[in-house]
Amino acid sequence: MIKFRKDSIIKSIFIILPALILFNFALEKRHEVSEQDLRIAEQFVKLATGEEKGYELLRELTNMGPRLSGSEGSMAAIDWAYNKMNELGLENVTKQPVMVPKWVRGTVERSRVIKSENFNNKNLNIAALGGTVGTPNGPISGQVLEVQSFQELKEKSKQAKGKIIFFNRPMDKTLYETFGAYGGAVSQRGGGASAAAEVGGIAALVRSMTMKDDNVPHTGGMGYQDGIKKVPAAAVGIHDADFLSNLLKSEPNIEVSLELSAKNHPDVQSYNVYADIKGSEFPNEIIVVGGHFDSWDKGVGAMDDGGGCLQALEVLDLFNRLGIKPKRTIRVVFFINEENGGRGGTEYAAFAANSDEKHIAAIESDRGVFTPRGFTTDAAPEVLAKMQSWLPALNKAKIEWVKNGGSGADVGKIKNAIARIGYYPDDARYFDYHHSDNDQFSAVSAREMELGTAAMAILTYMISEYGFDN
Amino acid sequence: MIKFRKDSIIKSIFIILPALILFNFALEKRHEVSEQDLRIAEQFVKLATGEEKGYELLRELTNMGPRLSGSEGSMAAIDWAYNKMNELGLENVTKQPVMVPKWVRGTVERSRVIKSENFNNKNLNIAALGGTVGTPNGPISGQVLEVQSFQELKEKSKQAKGKIIFFNRPMDKTLYETFGAYGGAVSQRGGGASAAAEVGGIAALVRSMTMKDDNVPHTGGMGYQDGIKKVPAAAVGIHDADFLSNLLKSEPNIEVSLELSAKNHPDVQSYNVYADIKGSEFPNEIIVVGGHFDSWDKGVGAMDDGGGCLQALEVLDLFNRLGIKPKRTIRVVFFINEENGGRGGTEYAAFAANSDEKHIAAIESDRGVFTPRGFTTDAAPEVLAKMQSWLPALNKAKIEWVKNGGSGADVGKIKNAIARIGYYPDDARYFDYHHSDNDQFSAVSAREMELGTAAMAILTYMISEYGFDN
Repeated sequence: MIKFRKDSIIKSIFIILPALILFNFALEKRHEVSEQDLRIAEQFVKLATGEEKGYELLRELTNMGPRLSGSEGSMAAIDWAYNKMNELGLENVTKQPVMVPKWVRGTVERSRVIKSENFNNKNLNIAALGGTVGTPNGPISGQVLEVQSFQELKEKSKQAKGKIIFFNRPMDKTLYETFGAYGGAVSQRGGGASAAAEVGGIAALVRSMTMKDDNVPHTGGMGYQDGIKKVPAAAVGIHDADFLSNLLKSEPNIEVSLELSAKNHPDVQSYNVYADIKGSEFPNEIIVVGGHFDSWDKGVGAMDDGGGCLQALEVLDLFNRLGIKPKRTIRVVFFINEENGGRGGTEYAAFAANSDEKHIAAIESDRGVFTPRGFTTDAAPEVLAKMQSWLPALNKAKIEWVKNGGSGADVGKIKNAIARIGYYPDDARYFDYHHSDNDQFSAVSAREMELGTAAMAILTYMISEYGFDN
Repeated sequence: MIKFRKDSIIKSIFIILPALILFNFALEKRHEVSEQDLRIAEQFVKLATGEEKGYELLRELTNMGPRLSGSEGSMAAIDWAYNKMNELGLENVTKQPVMVPKWVRGTVERSRVIKSENFNNKNLNIAALGGTVGTPNGPISGQVLEVQSFQELKEKSKQAKGKIIFFNRPMDKTLYETFGAYGGAVSQRGGGASAAAEVGGIAALVRSMTMKDDNVPHTGGMGYQDGIKKVPAAAVGIHDADFLSNLLKSEPNIEVSLELSAKNHPDVQSYNVYADIKGSEFPNEIIVVGGHFDSWDKGVGAMDDGGGCLQALEVLDLFNRLGIKPKRTIRVVFFINEENGGRGGTEYAAFAANSDEKHIAAIESDRGVFTPRGFTTDAAPEVLAKMQSWLPALNKAKIEWVKNGGSGADVGKIKNAIARIGYYPDDARYFDYHHSDNDQFSAVSAREMELGTAAMAILTYMISEYGFDN
C-alpha cells in the first residue's frame, strides 16, 4: 500500500488542481460564441441559400466568357466588376493598376501521331500551356520519349535529343487531398519545357492535371528557365495520354507532330478591383475577402475563380442586405493575374504593406465553390485557437474545422496581416474542371456555392466583431 | 483572504481529483484507435480510390437501365447481382423471396394548359407518381386550385370540387439539411391525391421535390387512403410549377388536362440478394452493410440507390482483396422495393428477428454517393460513444462526425440489431438527381463514391474487430 504524506499531497494539489482546472477551462473556452452570433450566422446562411444572389451574379459574369489576364474579355469583366461594386452601394470602389503579362493562345493547337503502322494521323487532344512559345515556322515533329519524372528524364538524357518529351506522371488519386495529388504532379507542367530543352528535347507534352475520366485537356501556367532554349509545351487529355503511352509500347518509333499558334506579347495594363464597407468602430482595420478575377481561356473560369470572387462580393452584400454594420472595414478584392504571373496579388500586398491601414485578416476562396469543409490559416496558434472557438457559428454553414495550413496564392502575400486564411471546400471534384473547358457555370451547384459564401460571411463577421487582439 | 482548512481540502481533493482525472481520461478515450487500425483504414482508402472498382460495377449495372420493383429490368439486375456476388467469391449468396407491388407507368403521361388566352396548349412537364391510378377513359381536365398545404386545402375546400389540386409548396432550401427540406415538402406527394379527392378534387399535381433550377419532373411514392376515391397524381417540373402558379394569377379560370397510362398490377415475386464473408471468431455475429437495389423508372438509379448497393458490395470485396479476415460476419444486403413498399426491408428484418444469428450492426447507404461527412445512428449512448472513439480511423475517409440520428428506411427495421447506422455524405446535390431522369451514372463522381465506400469499410472493420460489448 502506498503511503501519502499530507504535505506533499497538498503541495502537489496546489499545482495539479489549477492546471487541470485551467485545462478544462481552455476546453470550455472553445465554445465562446454568443446567441446573437449564432442568430446572425443563421441569417447569413438563410439569405445566401435562399436568394442565391452570388450564384446569379456568377451566371451574369460567366456569360461574358473567359477572363485571361490582358485579354479583352478580362478588361470587359473588370469594368463589369467595377460597375457592380458601385451598383451594390459599396464604398471606396477602386481599380488598382497592375501591369500583367499577355499571352495569346491563338487559333491553332494541333497534335497528331505520324509514322505509325496502326494509328497514323490519330489526333491527340491538346491545349497549349499558358506562357508557351508557339511553332511559328509550322508544325514540328519528332519521336517521343515518355518519362514519369525529371529524375527519369535525367537518367534517359542520352535518348532525349530531337525528341518530344512526354511527361506522363498521373495525379495520385489515392491521396487524402486532391490538392496534394495536384502538387505531386504539377512540376511537369510548370517546368517540363525547360527540362526537355535542357537535354535536347524539342517540345514537352504533359499529361493533363486531372483525375476525371475524360479526354479534355487542362491548361495551366508554365515558365522557362533563363539560359535554356524555349521549346513549346502542351497538355494532352488523359485518355490520349494513356493511348500514346500504350502505343509507344508496341510502336516505340512513332513520331508526333505539334503545331501551336501561341504567342507572348508585351505586358499590358490591367487592374485589381476592390471596394469596402467601412467599419463602424475600427475603420482603419481591414478584413480582405477575395479571389482572383482572371481565369484561363479554356472554359469560363466559373470554379476558378469567378465563383470565389462572387462569393467574396456577396459576403459584403449580405452584410448590407441584412443591415449589419461591421465594426471593422470589410474589403472585397478581385485580384488580377493569379494564373500566369501573380502580379495582382503582389501589387495589392505591396499596397497593404505601405498603407496606413492595418490589415488584420485576408480570406481567399480559390479552391472551388463546393460544400464547405473548413478554413486553413498560417496565423499564430492563439489566432488559430480563436478562430476555432468560433466553430459553433461557422458550423451553421457546415464548416467542420479550422486548421493550420496555407491560405491562398494572393492573400498569402499580405504578410503584414495577422491572419491569412483559405476557404477549404470539399475538394473531390475541383480538378475535374480546373483550367479546362469543363470549367463552366453549369459545373457550379448553387447550394454548394452559397453555403461557402455564408461560411466566409460568418468568419468575416466574427473577425469584424471580435478582432484578434485578445 | 480566504482561509483553507487542511482536512476539508484533503477531503475535497479526494473527490475532485479523481473526478477530474476521470473526466480527462474520458476525453483521452475518444482516441483509442491502434496504429494497425489506422494503417488498415488507409489501405481501404487507397484501394477504393485507386482502383474505383465499385464505380466500375455501377457503370455496368446502370448500363442495364432502371430497376423498378417488379419490372423485368429489376429481375435482370437481381440475376446480375446474384452472379456478381458469386463471382467475387462471397459465401452464402442468397436470393430471399419477397412479394412486391408492380406498378407500371406505361407510355403516356401528358398534361397541358387549356382554355387559356395566352398559353393555350402549353405543355407541362410531368411524371406520374409511383402508385397512382391512370386515366383509363382518356384525358381528364379541370380548373386548377393552387395550395401550399393540406391546411390551406381544407380552408379552400369549397372551391375544390371538380378541380385539379395543385400542391406547390417548395422545398425550403435555406434549411441546414436538404433531407429536412425534403421532409418538409414530401407530404404533398405522398398524400396529395387522397387529400384532393377528399374535397372533391379530380387529380393532384405536385411540385417536384427538388431544388435544382431545371424543369425535370421528379417522381416518387404516393399512397391512397382507404375509403377515399383514387384520383390520379403527377409531379410537375418546378419551372412549369412556377409558370402555372404565375399564369393562375392572371388567368385563374384556365383548365389543365391530364392523361396518364399508369396502372397498378397484382404483386409479383422478387428478391432481396445477400452474401457474406464469414467471421473468423464470431461467425454468428452479423454486420449488415447494404442499400436498396430497386430504383424508380426515371433515370437509372445511380445515386438512388445503385451506388449505395455497390458501395456495400465493394466493402466486402475490399476486405477480400486486402486479405483481411473479419472477426465477425459481414453481410452485404441488396434490399428490394424500398421505393414503393419497403417490402424487402420488412422481409429481411423478419428473417433477422427469427434467426439464430445475432445482428450487431446494420449500415445503410441511401443518401447518395457524395463525399463523406458522417454517420448517424439510433444506437444507445455508449454504442454511439464507441463509434465516436473510432473517428481518427474514420477520418482517413473524410468522416468528420458520428451523431445520433436515423439510419435508413431498410436497416432501420432491423430492430434487434445493436446499432442501425446511416452513412451520411454531403447532401447538397442529392435532390438534384433524386427520382428523376437526372439520376444517371454521369452524375456520380468516382472519387466521391469511393471515399464513401472506404468510410463504410472502415466502420465495418472497426465493428468487426471490436464489437459493441464493452
